[in-house]
Amino acid sequence: MPDTQLALPLTNSAHPFRIEHPDDAIVKISLAGLCGSDLHTYRGLEGVQQDHICGHEFIGNVIALGSSFNPSSPLTRPALYGTLKLGDKVVSPFSVSCGECSTCRHGFTARCTTSLLFGSPLLPGAQAQYIRVPKAGGTLFVLPSSTPSPSVLPELQLLTALPDATLLLLSDILPTGLFVTLQALTHPNVSPVLTGIAWPGTANGLLSPTAQTNILPATDEDQILTVAIIGLGPVGLCATLALLDLLENRTPPTRFRILAIDPNEARRIKMQDIYDALPSSCKGAQGSTFTVCSNIDIPTWANHGCHAVLEVISSRIRLSSPISISPSSIPQIVGVPSALSFSLSLLTSSGVISSCGVHQAPPVPFTGRELYGLNATLAFGRCSVRAVFGAAAGLLARRRDVLGVIGTHGVVERVCPLSDAVRAYNLFEKGEWGKVVFDPWA
Amino acid sequence: MPDTQLALPLTNSAHPFRIEHPDDAIVKISLAGLCGSDLHTYRGLEGVQQDHICGHEFIGNVIALGSSFNPSSPLTRPALYGTLKLGDKVVSPFSVSCGECSTCRHGFTARCTTSLLFGSPLLPGAQAQYIRVPKAGGTLFVLPSSTPSPSVLPELQLLTALPDATLLLLSDILPTGLFVTLQALTHPNVSPVLTGIAWPGTANGLLSPTAQTNILPATDEDQILTVAIIGLGPVGLCATLALLDLLENRTPPTRFRILAIDPNEARRIKMQDIYDALPSSCKGAQGSTFTVCSNIDIPTWANHGCHAVLEVISSRIRLSSPISISPSSIPQIVGVPSALSFSLSLLTSSGVISSCGVHQAPPVPFTGRELYGLNATLAFGRCSVRAVFGAAAGLLARRRDVLGVIGTHGVVERVCPLSDAVRAYNLFEKGEWGKVVFDPWA
Repeated sequence: MPDTQLALPLTNSAHPFRIEHPDDAIVKISLAGLCGSDLHTYRGLEGVQQDHICGHEFIGNVIALGSSFNPSSPLTRPALYGTLKLGDKVVSPFSVSCGECSTCRHGFTARCTTSLLFGSPLLPGAQAQYIRVPKAGGTLFVLPSSTPSPSVLPELQLLTALPDATLLLLSDILPTGLFVTLQALTHPNVSPVLTGIAWPGTANGLLSPTAQTNILPATDEDQILTVAIIGLGPVGLCATLALLDLLENRTPPTRFRILAIDPNEARRIKMQDIYDALPSSCKGAQGSTFTVCSNIDIPTWANHGCHAVLEVISSRIRLSSPISISPSSIPQIVGVPSALSFSLSLLTSSGVISSCGVHQAPPVPFTGRELYGLNATLAFGRCSVRAVFGAAAGLLARRRDVLGVIGTHGVVERVCPLSDAVRAYNLFEKGEWGKVVFDPWA
Repeated sequence: MPDTQLALPLTNSAHPFRIEHPDDAIVKISLAGLCGSDLHTYRGLEGVQQDHICGHEFIGNVIALGSSFNPSSPLTRPALYGTLKLGDKVVSPFSVSCGECSTCRHGFTARCTTSLLFGSPLLPGAQAQYIRVPKAGGTLFVLPSSTPSPSVLPELQLLTALPDATLLLLSDILPTGLFVTLQALTHPNVSPVLTGIAWPGTANGLLSPTAQTNILPATDEDQILTVAIIGLGPVGLCATLALLDLLENRTPPTRFRILAIDPNEARRIKMQDIYDALPSSCKGAQGSTFTVCSNIDIPTWANHGCHAVLEVISSRIRLSSPISISPSSIPQIVGVPSALSFSLSLLTSSGVISSCGVHQAPPVPFTGRELYGLNATLAFGRCSVRAVFGAAAGLLARRRDVLGVIGTHGVVERVCPLSDAVRAYNLFEKGEWGKVVFDPWA
């Protein structure tokens, strides 16, 4: 990526921050994130030919609104067209969603029929001082103001105490971490572990309870959930926090074996620090284990079979049989084929690989026979941030002590001026820096 | 495949029908099926080097039992070890499952840790007069006898009136059709269509209901379920019957658009005949459509994009916009990569491709970018017949009028002596014959 591209946001001369459509809002950006998926463009993998403003994570305040925003906006439109006001503090999903099309009504806002990705050639991005938000009444999320309001859940009111660099996590990586975990845990094949009821059960109410199946009832051991989180970058950290949060407060308490895997030592140390800082209520029923480990005996993210890595892991967590800890659920946060191969090599039969990475052109590195032989499910995709915003905001509020840390031990590692952008992209890509947030006014 | 292999079952000289293990049963076979997946061996695709007895679908009567079968079998074993008797009429899943290991206790009996496939080099198959069934107390299913018993559900008592050629459907293709449909419909991404509740809802109880998501509520149109069934061979017919059965009696009634697609005209005619013979209660809420069609404008099962085929289909079912009928759920019964490509070309975003086909060595023909771009889920695998037996038996009982037809218009097309096996394999492979069942005593 030429430096000129990164330099662009420093002046606003090229930034078309005017209302172009009645549904537009203009936001004055207080902070903008640098995300792993910005690196795809940076690496030249997106085939982008023209200069454009990068970045798709931002938090800021509304400074202009199109004519669609007014108290008499019809009830057939998203409520925000009737309530959003100048000055409101907002955070935005990384892509535009109208909230009105059939895809949005199903909750799949990431694939809205009018979807546009901020920071792409089609829509100027967030690593700038201002940004135009199309379909803003469907897209934006208004953060609670410091004056308590009866319309704001008490839990979400806690967000007002958090720094913007933490609230910015709501624009992408915290919802994406929640999404990749939900996509893994809510698959019907994981249900027998979570509920103790054998597949197919009533298949979400589609089947009547039937004659006994002649199989033995689940034991306590059968209900130990084994999850491998592959990739402990910023999204992987969020996925882990989301996973622990989803498993908290279940009745009966969930016993888990979580394997958090990354080859990068700094990432592993941060993961362990974050886990250690969590309250014990997040740490599962008695007998649960949380193991941060490297794929150190596997030279690359490559398919060397599960035994090497699982023997290492099982010796750490003192299990006699490697196979018994094959994960049934693998949130997978690395958008490259070799990480997919590694995931499949770990997966137990009838397991689920959930991927939120932005994958590129190489074919999926599996044969039909491998997937058939494992009864495997692959669930891919982009997080529908807008649909999961409420849940992610609750998670942020509950984990505010951990997610509010800015620095080496926090998910957000540093806040930089945009003049550091070239260096930040470079060091973030090399894995030497963790999550970076830009202050466009510094 | 050499003819000698097909000739083997005609004499029992090579058939080891003796009890080899206390958990074994020997079954005298009354009928054995010829299944599409037998063709993989027939075509030489399984790398089988030795002669063995083919076939994995059978129905018959128990003629010998190992010592594990007795009324004092411990309660820590599947109940059948205590109740199975000589003479009992049984049907068997196509693979052995113990009912005792953790995988079985989760309901995934197809991937039992002691799983063996009948009709493979490791376990002599069913196209014979007798068969040895390992782990028979976990594997076999006892059919109700003609004397009504209070322990048999009244619905299942109806099975006693059906011919063996129909009951044989329980060994593989009816449960497999039910499985591939369940795997498609129970995915959480299909839930918004079935329930009208936007993703993620409460994510199967993992999330608390959260703040409103600012997206508009689902309309009636959003709750029309569009399903494309790809491949109308015997399993595809069963999948279609399972789909219609699962959608029956829902509150409120489900409105659907079902596309049943196959290039083979005889298969399409049979599908239409079967649909026409169904009671109206199966045919969805008012406005539902069921369209049998070919991929006729697409020369092969190849990825030519969805528009050609959907324009043809939409003109038949009188919809203005082709895109509006992209299926969210695709049960896919053709185990070849080009059929997978065709499925993906039809799929709507956040849709699910469910495959029950025995795929071979070619890589899955998708890139990570395609799957990410569509938020697609691929769910593969072998049906856990034993776990779904009760549900499949209920389906067979309810659809006995249709499934009981033997002949050109039925799912089971003909019953042949084993001496016709060479011809049957040949014509079944060419698609000239539909489902064939062998009578080893004819």
